[in-house]
Amino acid sequence: MTALLSGENLERSLRQIGEERYHHRHPFHHLMRDGKLNRGQVQAWALNRYYYQARIPAKDAFLVARLPTPALRREWRRRILDHDGEDEGTGGIARWLKLTDGLGLDREYVTSLRGILPGTKFAVEAYVHFVDEKTLLEAIASSLTELFSPAIIGERVEGMLKGYPFVTSETLAYFAKRPPQAKKDSDFALDYVKRNARTPAEQRAVLAALEFKCGVLWSMLDALHFAYVAPGHIPPGAFVPKD
Amino acid sequence: MTALLSGENLERSLRQIGEERYHHRHPFHHLMRDGKLNRGQVQAWALNRYYYQARIPAKDAFLVARLPTPALRREWRRRILDHDGEDEGTGGIARWLKLTDGLGLDREYVTSLRGILPGTKFAVEAYVHFVDEKTLLEAIASSLTELFSPAIIGERVEGMLKGYPFVTSETLAYFAKRPPQAKKDSDFALDYVKRNARTPAEQRAVLAALEFKCGVLWSMLDALHFAYVAPGHIPPGAFVPKD
Repeated sequence: MTALLSGENLERSLRQIGEERYHHRHPFHHLMRDGKLNRGQVQAWALNRYYYQARIPAKDAFLVARLPTPALRREWRRRILDHDGEDEGTGGIARWLKLTDGLGLDREYVTSLRGILPGTKFAVEAYVHFVDEKTLLEAIASSLTELFSPAIIGERVEGMLKGYPFVTSETLAYFAKRPPQAKKDSDFALDYVKRNARTPAEQRAVLAALEFKCGVLWSMLDALHFAYVAPGHIPPGAFVPKD
Repeated sequence: MTALLSGENLERSLRQIGEERYHHRHPFHHLMRDGKLNRGQVQAWALNRYYYQARIPAKDAFLVARLPTPALRREWRRRILDHDGEDEGTGGIARWLKLTDGLGLDREYVTSLRGILPGTKFAVEAYVHFVDEKTLLEAIASSLTELFSPAIIGERVEGMLKGYPFVTSETLAYFAKRPPQAKKDSDFALDYVKRNARTPAEQRAVLAALEFKCGVLWSMLDALHFAYVAPGHIPPGAFVPKD
């Protein structure tokens, strides 16, 4: 039997999971941050991560569909707007395509999804299905990796601007917008799970949901690292860098 | 515009996909077959592959649920019986647990799924969801990797008995049963897709379903290779071999 945690201790346990399992500890992130990737490897990362960006609004729409009140739906709807924008060419996905443009990838190739790794697809789809199928509390808790994203974005942007001559701050416009959005989102989600996980079993489910989500992000970098870091085992049919 | 293929040419295209994308070409399979893994690595393979075995009856049950006639359902139901057995301790899953027993893994640990890699989970779940969500034709076509399994099982069993003193033919009982089952299953599925893919678009969907499924199996070996072959990056929380 586990005892019920205070809100403060639940938050501490969530942050502990982030410390141990968030992808800021992944060797591929370290290579990227430290300027040790070549252009083809950074392209592979941006191409694969595009699929995550592209599916986030679907994930959030499943969540909006399940929320019970207009106020909650409005709060969560904001995330869809953040990604899809108000007009063509605005929003997070459009900014991500500026990143892939800036890295020299063909936009039609990127959005066709033809070159992405099976490991990327399966991890991202697992996240979308999780949000559609688990309890609302677990679905919301799985978004809590955003607690940790401002820090990793800071490291990534600084490291990429310093380490890669082919990366400009204009290319990285996506990341300039994200930290305040992520802060607002994760403040809401953290408060929600603290107020709504009212039994030890619910608190365990919240912690497990965050572990699951850390596994999604971790496994996306596993797939990239295995395919594109030497010796590099690119699966049949996936993107092959030219440089 | 693609032309409609003859049944014979559709089969040739399916076999070509197997030649290029089936996991008999994966470096982890080559290491296993050639006796180059240690006991911990073979344990990791058996532990992770257990999850695939354990979810196959769910995948097949989704398919049975969607088949329109008693005759088709009986045909496909056989696959559930093959895996779940007639009584406790019989069937493919029970035989797989004899393999994990024989390799010295704790049965409670194996069946708890605690130690499996996120990449394994996501790949297997992608397969289950695919069968539940795509057309019946695509769902059936995705089973066609069984066309290629007798050959890989032959290589694997021969290589494992020769290469690993800790593996006995009793431990490998699972594999003795599979080739005739797989042959019967894939004869049926191949005939079904040849008769039911009646437009170029349907034939393309059949080919894409087999590519998808090859990606599932490939990506499971990617995850194992990345985690357990030197230098080895085991994700937080996954199985850590003792030897």
